[in-house]
Amino acid sequence: MDNIFNSKVRVKILALLYGVKYCEFNYLLKKLETSPGNLWSHLKKLEREGYIEIKKYPLKKGVRTVVKITDKGIEKFREYLNELLKLSGGGI
Amino acid sequence: MDNIFNSKVRVKILALLYGVKYCEFNYLLKKLETSPGNLWSHLKKLEREGYIEIKKYPLKKGVRTVVKITDKGIEKFREYLNELLKLSGGGI
Repeated sequence: MDNIFNSKVRVKILALLYGVKYCEFNYLLKKLETSPGNLWSHLKKLEREGYIEIKKYPLKKGVRTVVKITDKGIEKFREYLNELLKLSGGGI
Repeated sequence: MDNIFNSKVRVKILALLYGVKYCEFNYLLKKLETSPGNLWSHLKKLEREGYIEIKKYPLKKGVRTVVKITDKGIEKFREYLNELLKLSGGGI
């Protein structure tokens, strides 16, 4: 049982990244109703487990943080969603 | 943020019940790879929050335990799955 999926926020992060492949930290923050600190801790966990990559680009003022889903992340999220659709009979 | 969905096992229980509406405890146990004790604790939590109903029917030997998803459970699971499908772009 994969611990990554024991969090609604992490599942939503993966769902969003599955759709867009990569995006900025602030975009995630806007789309998912959570705090910057909470989002960051979930992203670090996803990165440690190889589901996403986080890159920081220095700007004149501050840093631009880009988050990208990995092949593993894509595969695992697809498996998760497929399992739910299969269990639930495929239709909503 | 609904705490119910912070568990892969609970989400899978709801997915399965969403498809079949009701089933026996032993059927859930067979379909979801978990222990009886773990399954039971997740079912009790789902029952407390009004997502499912649990009924016990005495048999000559032992008890038949039937688990049924409630209207609230159906609605909440549909919302969850719709949200994931929407975030991920609708296609897998």
